[in-house]
Amino acid sequence: MGLNIIEKILSRKSGRAVRVGDIVVAEVDFVMGQDGTSPLAINAFRAMGGKALFDPAKVALVIDHSAPSPSEGVSNLHKFMRNFARETGCHLYDVGDGVCHQLMLESGAVGPGSLVVGADSHTCTYGALNAFATGVGSTDLAAALISGRMWFKVPPTLKFVCHGILPPGVYSKDLILFLIGQVTADGATYMSVEFSGEAVRALSMEARFTISNMAVEMGAKAGLMEADERTAEWVARYSRRTFEPAAPDPDAVYERILEFDVSGLEPQVARPHRVDNVAPLSEVAGLPVDEAVLGTCTNGRLEDLRIAAALVRRYRVSPRVRFIVAPASRHVYLQALRDGTLETLVQAGAAVVTPGCGPCVGTHNGVPADGERVISTANRNFKGRMGNRNAEIYLASPAAVAAAALTGEITDPREFLK
Amino acid sequence: MGLNIIEKILSRKSGRAVRVGDIVVAEVDFVMGQDGTSPLAINAFRAMGGKALFDPAKVALVIDHSAPSPSEGVSNLHKFMRNFARETGCHLYDVGDGVCHQLMLESGAVGPGSLVVGADSHTCTYGALNAFATGVGSTDLAAALISGRMWFKVPPTLKFVCHGILPPGVYSKDLILFLIGQVTADGATYMSVEFSGEAVRALSMEARFTISNMAVEMGAKAGLMEADERTAEWVARYSRRTFEPAAPDPDAVYERILEFDVSGLEPQVARPHRVDNVAPLSEVAGLPVDEAVLGTCTNGRLEDLRIAAALVRRYRVSPRVRFIVAPASRHVYLQALRDGTLETLVQAGAAVVTPGCGPCVGTHNGVPADGERVISTANRNFKGRMGNRNAEIYLASPAAVAAAALTGEITDPREFLK
Repeated sequence: MGLNIIEKILSRKSGRAVRVGDIVVAEVDFVMGQDGTSPLAINAFRAMGGKALFDPAKVALVIDHSAPSPSEGVSNLHKFMRNFARETGCHLYDVGDGVCHQLMLESGAVGPGSLVVGADSHTCTYGALNAFATGVGSTDLAAALISGRMWFKVPPTLKFVCHGILPPGVYSKDLILFLIGQVTADGATYMSVEFSGEAVRALSMEARFTISNMAVEMGAKAGLMEADERTAEWVARYSRRTFEPAAPDPDAVYERILEFDVSGLEPQVARPHRVDNVAPLSEVAGLPVDEAVLGTCTNGRLEDLRIAAALVRRYRVSPRVRFIVAPASRHVYLQALRDGTLETLVQAGAAVVTPGCGPCVGTHNGVPADGERVISTANRNFKGRMGNRNAEIYLASPAAVAAAALTGEITDPREFLK
Repeated sequence: MGLNIIEKILSRKSGRAVRVGDIVVAEVDFVMGQDGTSPLAINAFRAMGGKALFDPAKVALVIDHSAPSPSEGVSNLHKFMRNFARETGCHLYDVGDGVCHQLMLESGAVGPGSLVVGADSHTCTYGALNAFATGVGSTDLAAALISGRMWFKVPPTLKFVCHGILPPGVYSKDLILFLIGQVTADGATYMSVEFSGEAVRALSMEARFTISNMAVEMGAKAGLMEADERTAEWVARYSRRTFEPAAPDPDAVYERILEFDVSGLEPQVARPHRVDNVAPLSEVAGLPVDEAVLGTCTNGRLEDLRIAAALVRRYRVSPRVRFIVAPASRHVYLQALRDGTLETLVQAGAAVVTPGCGPCVGTHNGVPADGERVISTANRNFKGRMGNRNAEIYLASPAAVAAAALTGEITDPREFLK
């Protein structure tokens, strides 16, 4: 019997043939922490007697969740991270550089077959590059910082096969929301997921990252895809390294295979307060919206900003709505600046915040007021996620967010494509 | 005996010839409040039995100090302002539109001879347009919102005559810091100030705004300038109204006239924790800097951003420094985007925040950590101003801030002009 993607990667990284259920100790290729988790990890690193990093070139700390800092307490944690980075010689991405996951994708350090751990739930994003990348706790991160290794129990794999091609006005965000709605928020708990099929292969790398990013919202440890020519193009653009893709064997074993024909999929939304509370957008169309958020590690890339810009061109944002745009990185910001995307968005009425996590985690840059409704391209809509437990968050595609920004209510973006 | 500028404006606006010391009730041309003060003013408006605004077209509320909102409490205050604006029909500038003062300057509502009150200390900025504009408390603002009138005691005037032309690398910010250092923080308390002389006349309107903006830092109620062809150009660009400039009579009476030859002025800084703790920059050159802030109502205009961009072109911001740029308005942002200024700044390593007050008032967007040193183009360096009482703030010109961002220490910007 052949191996699936995660079995292949963990076999290589542990130096022996492993199977679902095996406990392995694997070499990690890269370790990442952000400003919400790194301070805890640094404390744990010290408590474990850590003196030096296993390899400073393979470690990055990223200041993105609350950047620039909104408070003295956060500023002191940032300073603590900067001092640790200077002391140990690891990479530090500071205020304005962008969201950790986007920076990892652009760093050249991650590619097909890589094994990456990050102290952030959405580390699974790099699965779209055929990397086993997963979120870990701060204590586990500290151990990885010291040893460059980590133990895993090889998870079973749930495979999605998506047939057909997404229709116009329907995006990878709609697809992953739909899949999460189908399997629920714990439908893949402790499992690895593989996303495959014609619908996935037809997507750009940027669109694929959105899908892998949200694998954790069905409970998965990883959201893997096979490497293809688009993966190779991305890697060639951002990296000088060579990577060894991990393709599943034709006779690989899966816990479960779910097949969907998505050629008739409609725009989707996740309704408050669960990511798996998914419905066709048409069911909630017309609900007034106070804030529209475009960005985050889920949908803050150039393609996402362009989709929104194409929609708002020649229109003005509704005076009822704050339209907040958070480009995912400095690189994305500069690309969007150079090609006119940023100008179109700002001209239409968007407020562009510093590249980084923006208002996604509720620490600044657009906390909603009591009783307000937000539509966002982010990945989580839990009660209080954006800093106010008395607000509602709907998750949707960049096109749906832009459409709502223009009309002031949840709107099918296909109305702007007619 | 003739009249000085403020006597002329208050005579016109009160309908009778008035002199220093007279108590007058004057018609106001425009009333402005920002998000730190408007909620209090709205409450006072209601407590006074206010039902309608004296003229909704002459009132603007601006969400700029904490925009986008960094907390639930602030968000609820913003919502309160939005509801009041909808109910009364006044202008509302929302998240991303910019700093209240820059918006007033661009609004076309303010020009030579205008009388404007704003619930913000730096309302005096519009004095550079030959308008009597002054900051008032929230209760006074409420009275003005209801009546369109306000009482004033005609203040005595302190006149500055600045001879000579500022040398290269020395800017209007250096000039106003120098003047504040000369007269101290209460050198013009309860007085009106007139800025005049060859050095002032030679400045662009944008550079002049910086000077009038900081008149309040010597205690003045107003920082007035005569209107000239540059004033007329600004007004023609932003307004369709006609204004009646108020020129001082040749035999106008002044409380005091101070003359300076500024042709040999050096770059200046205000050291912690007082704006009048001014010294030549050379006295503090070499001090390490953690954060450099370019923006605010003092120095966040296109000319300021261009000065900084010219300096950082072909260099990289020091990894020791966060270089935070806050364009003063959406209009400034778009201008800077279109002419390449923003690209130059971001490429060099700047973190551009949403147009607005940025980190100036310490609510978000770059609060310093304990023990850190900030160099900023803002107008106040009081202990705790930026949200941390254990940080130091140095005030300087955009060129000096950009120079420090590059070198990581306080640096004479003229070193980059050689």
